[in-house]
Amino acid sequence: MAGRDQNKFAFEAFFRQSPFGSTYTVAAGLEQALQYLSGLSFKEDEIAYLSRQPGFHRDFLNALAEFRFQGDVYAIPEGRVVYPREPLIRVEGTIWECQLVETALLAIIGHQTLIATKAARVCEAAGDDPVMEFGARRCQGMEAAFLGARAAFIGGCGATSNVLAGQRFGIPVAGTMAHSFIMSFASELEAFRAYAQAFPNKAVFLVDTYETLNSGVPNAIKVWQEWRDKGMELQGKGIRLDSGDLAYLSKRARKMMDEAGFPEAVIVGSNDLDEYLIRDIKGQGAPIGLWGVGTRLMTAADQPALGLVYKLVAELKEEQSGIQRWEPRVKKSEVPEKVTLAGRKQVFRFLNQENQGQVHSVKNGIGTKSMADLITLWDEPEPKGEVLIFDPVHTWKRKILRRYEVEKLVIPVMRQGRRLLESEDLSVIRSRAKKDIAALSEEQRRIVNPHGYIVDWSKELWTTQQQLLNSTSTC
Amino acid sequence: MAGRDQNKFAFEAFFRQSPFGSTYTVAAGLEQALQYLSGLSFKEDEIAYLSRQPGFHRDFLNALAEFRFQGDVYAIPEGRVVYPREPLIRVEGTIWECQLVETALLAIIGHQTLIATKAARVCEAAGDDPVMEFGARRCQGMEAAFLGARAAFIGGCGATSNVLAGQRFGIPVAGTMAHSFIMSFASELEAFRAYAQAFPNKAVFLVDTYETLNSGVPNAIKVWQEWRDKGMELQGKGIRLDSGDLAYLSKRARKMMDEAGFPEAVIVGSNDLDEYLIRDIKGQGAPIGLWGVGTRLMTAADQPALGLVYKLVAELKEEQSGIQRWEPRVKKSEVPEKVTLAGRKQVFRFLNQENQGQVHSVKNGIGTKSMADLITLWDEPEPKGEVLIFDPVHTWKRKILRRYEVEKLVIPVMRQGRRLLESEDLSVIRSRAKKDIAALSEEQRRIVNPHGYIVDWSKELWTTQQQLLNSTSTC
Repeated sequence: MAGRDQNKFAFEAFFRQSPFGSTYTVAAGLEQALQYLSGLSFKEDEIAYLSRQPGFHRDFLNALAEFRFQGDVYAIPEGRVVYPREPLIRVEGTIWECQLVETALLAIIGHQTLIATKAARVCEAAGDDPVMEFGARRCQGMEAAFLGARAAFIGGCGATSNVLAGQRFGIPVAGTMAHSFIMSFASELEAFRAYAQAFPNKAVFLVDTYETLNSGVPNAIKVWQEWRDKGMELQGKGIRLDSGDLAYLSKRARKMMDEAGFPEAVIVGSNDLDEYLIRDIKGQGAPIGLWGVGTRLMTAADQPALGLVYKLVAELKEEQSGIQRWEPRVKKSEVPEKVTLAGRKQVFRFLNQENQGQVHSVKNGIGTKSMADLITLWDEPEPKGEVLIFDPVHTWKRKILRRYEVEKLVIPVMRQGRRLLESEDLSVIRSRAKKDIAALSEEQRRIVNPHGYIVDWSKELWTTQQQLLNSTSTC
Repeated sequence: MAGRDQNKFAFEAFFRQSPFGSTYTVAAGLEQALQYLSGLSFKEDEIAYLSRQPGFHRDFLNALAEFRFQGDVYAIPEGRVVYPREPLIRVEGTIWECQLVETALLAIIGHQTLIATKAARVCEAAGDDPVMEFGARRCQGMEAAFLGARAAFIGGCGATSNVLAGQRFGIPVAGTMAHSFIMSFASELEAFRAYAQAFPNKAVFLVDTYETLNSGVPNAIKVWQEWRDKGMELQGKGIRLDSGDLAYLSKRARKMMDEAGFPEAVIVGSNDLDEYLIRDIKGQGAPIGLWGVGTRLMTAADQPALGLVYKLVAELKEEQSGIQRWEPRVKKSEVPEKVTLAGRKQVFRFLNQENQGQVHSVKNGIGTKSMADLITLWDEPEPKGEVLIFDPVHTWKRKILRRYEVEKLVIPVMRQGRRLLESEDLSVIRSRAKKDIAALSEEQRRIVNPHGYIVDWSKELWTTQQQLLNSTSTC
């Protein structure tokens, strides 16, 4: 169209606000995004279908038949903590190559980033207790369950009930019995006995099928005792509470199990849990040692979309001298938050050299390991020595950074359609998230109304942005 | 396990409350559920993986290798309006066959039913205006986008931006230009000109890239006028408003387009719309003729999970005489709403013979075409003559139905693992939904706090349920 087909553009994907009121967000989904880009092609039947739709030129359809993604891609690796306006991924290619992949990239990265962040919050609320992901059945389809399990593990969950995700991604698989398993027996006691026979190493009984305290817990204790009486101790003893008031029931059940001689039996809590409810139940002293979290985690119930956007940020221009140069572009808007940040960008993260691994709670995050992020234009040199950073809106808010290490967040992951970043082990990604989250203060990790984190722009980026906004050539 | 492997059980999937505070729910996803059941098998690598997990017996793994779903399945067809506690699908088979498919069935049917219902509400708010589904990029992954587009069409959307869904399901495809398309040109005007050249039959311009009223709308008018001046009228003229206050901007833009001689140009509204916002914007007289709805529709933002459950309802028992009989089973709970409804069930819908197609607004739904649903045990005869129905909780609330037609909602769809219900054309399913929704009163279709619909139980079902609850044999 209009001979512009071979011009090169750069698009970046970012979000404007962290989800759930969180300060931080956990990046996830890059692996599937790269797999999508590597495998993208159009089959004959798809092109035939398009040819029957109005508005597609023959040339375009022929090009589609030959299409393979040949662009360059840069991204922040999975598991890294990221903030609003930081480029999660940048795609460089022809305009239609960049546009063709937009929807898929946003859906893939947006979904997993959302679930990984939700999982991190749920795990934050659970503290040292393990969290299991139990949500497959309530997901928005089978793929959302499969990839959501992956994202939940990145965010900190310790296991999944999704066996396929367990197999493909090496996530530990966990699960307990179902109500219907119990109902398929003539009595609850008979069901527990059969289950213990089948799984003598994980004798966790679901105790709320009929009546938790009058039937479920006593029957569980009875079966454990029967084995003990025979001199065969069941392993992994526990009960799962899946309805009723978990704080009340867990305290009562704990007392019954302790008095019966089973202080080692754990209590698993489940039933529409999320970070808010876990925090409150724990705050009330519930002796629950393991959490099964499903629907609200896996659908990100309080904000089921991240709101990731994908915007044109630069165009490659050939100057008269023949030298190519990326020209930054901006999208204006009457709403200031909707103005895009111009140019191909890098993010530098400043880590405190003096507080290695320590978590303090000091105003403005100074004292924590992670001090601030600085968004710069791509080619700017790595910060060295004393660095003055300033708030991009309230520019009088300044800070001098000294004695830091700096990390470069955005790395090349694909060149001319070929992967540079190989598939990473999921446990590596998960550890990366854990480390990045631990580098924040407790206040910054708080569930509700957390303390903020500094994300400033370099002077060069700030100046470029101002110049573009003040010029009228973009309208 | 315990020699019970060959016993037959029946499981039914149902929800306890319609989503979004709606009175009705639109069933969807059965086609994909049946495809799943038909295709289910376990590959060698999957079985090898399971064999490395603790707790799986060799016999079970061997059985998995041979596994094909061989159960019987009954369901309410897609597109039908359904209510809480009605069985969307029933699976009959061995206990492990029934359990193996639980998670997938719930995820598939729960997701599409949720989105179809949300779409029906959005279309209700839009009245006679067409609604386009634009949400792929914000979906919980690519599959949720693809199948969500299918469900949204069933619920009443007229088109999708998801081209794959367009191809596979025959849904009309629609879309407009992107902000980045405009930004890839030196100016907005140039972008509109190029677009009109490429798509002279659908000249809908996105007008909010820079400034809607000062740049976008004037440039759109300019391009339409340029073509008109050359004697070549552009077709399908329109503008899309994607930010700012849609009520205010649409009124101003309408005036500008009318005064410029383009009263035929339509206004498309988009930007985080849902049924509530569309209703309010329309109520303020916004001259928007077409709605593009994305994120909030496709993630069912205000309730992203239906809460579908799947419960054991009966067991096939052989009596001494050798006759097999389905014995109803119930799951008790301290929470009355969580008690399951025993037995294999049918649903009869009573349609008013006297008010064919008329939509009245009469208390208790009498006067509308759809009068009431009656949940019965599977083998009960079809109601005839005068029928006394009564509320299952407040049994003094009674009603006599006369002069009705009756429809049987649950039909056999699979026998011994083979499909009885062939794949239906999506437009047939969509028409079914439209008809069922139109059979309700305006009050029952209201977006907020709608009037209820009568769903009673037959006397036989009610009695069975009471007997089971009063017996203690289930605990």
